[in-house]
Amino acid sequence: MAIEIERKFLVKDNSWKEGAAGKLYRQGYLSREKGRTVRVRRVEERAFLTVKGAGDGLSRPEYEYEIPVVDGQELLDSLCELPLIEKVRYLVLYAGMVWEVDEFLGDNRGLVVAEIELSSPDQRFEEPPWLGIEVTGDPRYYNSSLSREPFCGWAPG
Amino acid sequence: MAIEIERKFLVKDNSWKEGAAGKLYRQGYLSREKGRTVRVRRVEERAFLTVKGAGDGLSRPEYEYEIPVVDGQELLDSLCELPLIEKVRYLVLYAGMVWEVDEFLGDNRGLVVAEIELSSPDQRFEEPPWLGIEVTGDPRYYNSSLSREPFCGWAPG
Repeated sequence: MAIEIERKFLVKDNSWKEGAAGKLYRQGYLSREKGRTVRVRRVEERAFLTVKGAGDGLSRPEYEYEIPVVDGQELLDSLCELPLIEKVRYLVLYAGMVWEVDEFLGDNRGLVVAEIELSSPDQRFEEPPWLGIEVTGDPRYYNSSLSREPFCGWAPG
Repeated sequence: MAIEIERKFLVKDNSWKEGAAGKLYRQGYLSREKGRTVRVRRVEERAFLTVKGAGDGLSRPEYEYEIPVVDGQELLDSLCELPLIEKVRYLVLYAGMVWEVDEFLGDNRGLVVAEIELSSPDQRFEEPPWLGIEVTGDPRYYNSSLSREPFCGWAPG
């Protein structure tokens, strides 16, 4: 098991995007109960099956296994709950840290979320100028929630 | 994906057991919805994560992945729905076919089920003398059901 410690933020503008190259992520859920999710994810020609346990908002136990891409595609097409989540993930380097910036598609279009993975909950990092408000632990922004209640239904403004 | 085609029977007596050696199986479910189960299974020093789709009673799509045994044990201990299923599985050879005979423990003690895996739904096979009534497709005998409604609560007689 790995413990995933992550902080999640909205972004203020598109300046993070300059020069960044993204990859299409397609993912769905075989289970998205409160304390336990089972996710299938396809990223280009690779696929992963990931089990996540209950977290405290900031950290969650995570078990991730690579599976054959043909299996991943079949699981997405036939067994996962609909709708699937589609997003483009960009890796953005800032002050020596890697930010994962997810630009959502489909019913979640308009939502852009930046995540940083930390090695401890109190690890300090420099905030990039494009960083918006923190949404760590806000269940509306969980990918498993965005599948059931997409951003288009509750986007502010 | 594999398609699993199986027929399932009760047994009439213990004559199948002579000379058979069994292995302890411990398994639990991360999801056991009707058309989709996610199972964690530990067999001695190996562990597996298995996704099964909806079936027609006789055949089901199945995706099985071996995972590190330490992960399997953690998933069983911390994330699977309780109670876990415990059973001893015996492989019994009869007329050139392998029967999996499961002797359940815990709240399912007293239940013994024999399964045969077929390569097509209409494949013929010789019935061993100890074979009892067929229960293929009876949802009470699904392992995922036995976790929620154990045999001790509804055993005939």
